[in-house]
Amino acid sequence: MDYDNRPIGVFDSGVGGLTVLKELMQKFPNESFIYVGDTARLPYGSKSASTIRRYSEQIIQYLKQRDVKAIVIACNTASTQVPESEFLGLPIYNVITPGARQALLKSDTQRIGVLGTRATVKSLAYKKKLLELNPKAEVFHQACPLFVPLAEEGWDNDPITNLIAFRYLQPLLQMHIDTLILGCTHYPLLKNSIAKVTGSQIELVDSGEAICSWIQDDLSKGRFKLSAPKERSVTLLTTDQSDQFNQMAQMILESSIATTSAVVDVT
Amino acid sequence: MDYDNRPIGVFDSGVGGLTVLKELMQKFPNESFIYVGDTARLPYGSKSASTIRRYSEQIIQYLKQRDVKAIVIACNTASTQVPESEFLGLPIYNVITPGARQALLKSDTQRIGVLGTRATVKSLAYKKKLLELNPKAEVFHQACPLFVPLAEEGWDNDPITNLIAFRYLQPLLQMHIDTLILGCTHYPLLKNSIAKVTGSQIELVDSGEAICSWIQDDLSKGRFKLSAPKERSVTLLTTDQSDQFNQMAQMILESSIATTSAVVDVT
Repeated sequence: MDYDNRPIGVFDSGVGGLTVLKELMQKFPNESFIYVGDTARLPYGSKSASTIRRYSEQIIQYLKQRDVKAIVIACNTASTQVPESEFLGLPIYNVITPGARQALLKSDTQRIGVLGTRATVKSLAYKKKLLELNPKAEVFHQACPLFVPLAEEGWDNDPITNLIAFRYLQPLLQMHIDTLILGCTHYPLLKNSIAKVTGSQIELVDSGEAICSWIQDDLSKGRFKLSAPKERSVTLLTTDQSDQFNQMAQMILESSIATTSAVVDVT
Repeated sequence: MDYDNRPIGVFDSGVGGLTVLKELMQKFPNESFIYVGDTARLPYGSKSASTIRRYSEQIIQYLKQRDVKAIVIACNTASTQVPESEFLGLPIYNVITPGARQALLKSDTQRIGVLGTRATVKSLAYKKKLLELNPKAEVFHQACPLFVPLAEEGWDNDPITNLIAFRYLQPLLQMHIDTLILGCTHYPLLKNSIAKVTGSQIELVDSGEAICSWIQDDLSKGRFKLSAPKERSVTLLTTDQSDQFNQMAQMILESSIATTSAVVDVT
């Protein structure tokens, strides 16, 4: 069998993409990863489309220099601005396409809700992708600007977060959605509070899970090759020194997983 | 009388500093202002000291090129990293010094609470300044990472914000403070919710008010000259296009005040 031992690049504006990295690490146990969290410029969710595109391109350039074999954009906001499936000769995986596909598969009524940052909601990226895949789908958006800081406070399953989730989700529930896309990689960190509001009748779609199945499908088509069974390396890079990032990384990835970390300049 | 009609430069990471600009505009009706909101890189509160210093220096350089006569750092986080009273030959006003002075004046017991971003609290800038001015003061800090996004949602006097204010303030109330510094220029936008928790026994110190009295004192010492009575201009600049900024600017400054706005690159 033919192997390619180069790492896979993964990036996000901050810690949110670690929820995707965690899924990738579990699903692909031989793969090495280089993760970039753009903590010097986070969050992306409140920035304009052209700025988000520029930041994303800089990180992709940087990861190409680090000789990755593929790139996973583990950030919904950045994914809305980099829809290409190839960039600088590298296979690119964004989170929008697999999230939209999985939502349509899970939904009976094709009435689908999407939660995201202000920038993701404004881009209408999920709506466009969902309607491209099924023109009859009905899509309802809600921006949730407080969810990222709540996730970073670690307040999942907290009465305050439950109240805020209720306020954000109420308009979507009134639209009788049966499936809800967590359209920001931070949001799985608030899964308990969100599920408390949606109940068991609404299916939640998590970007990390969705992207893993997509990559699995793509591997069979030979878009890139897996690494040989051997000890892998996982490198966490940030663009600014951040205690908050390190604490959250430990919480999300669990301390048992060995990683190395450093601060880099991607500009 | 001798006049200097050049504008005063004011900057913040985003919209928070507009609460300071509003006070300055009221207190100094002939002065022109150039305001820079660094929306491409906001928020500063979660970034490292060296990054915040670098961003602040870039903006001060930019404002110097625009020929301002003085600079007001209308951001607590940036103020912690630029303690100088002069920089590039310009008088610099930070919000820490006047906030600390006013708190000591208002307090009977000299037991003072400080609310701020994670970066401001970590810098201990208020504590150092308060103890420099009165070594017997007792200072208690609390980081409030949810307050900025709550202010930007416009949720002042909202049951959810009241609950979050209660959670953040409870540890300070237990320390029997009698004065509380709102150590982030966003926080006056949540004054009703904060006052609901502190009640009438605790004095609130607002950066905007404090800095105006400081500048008034300084003018009598001749550090810079006022503008002649004439029509003034107020220019709002951001480093990224932002509908959110424009909406908040209207809300904070009130639409009756004529301003011009543009997007600029300060790097």
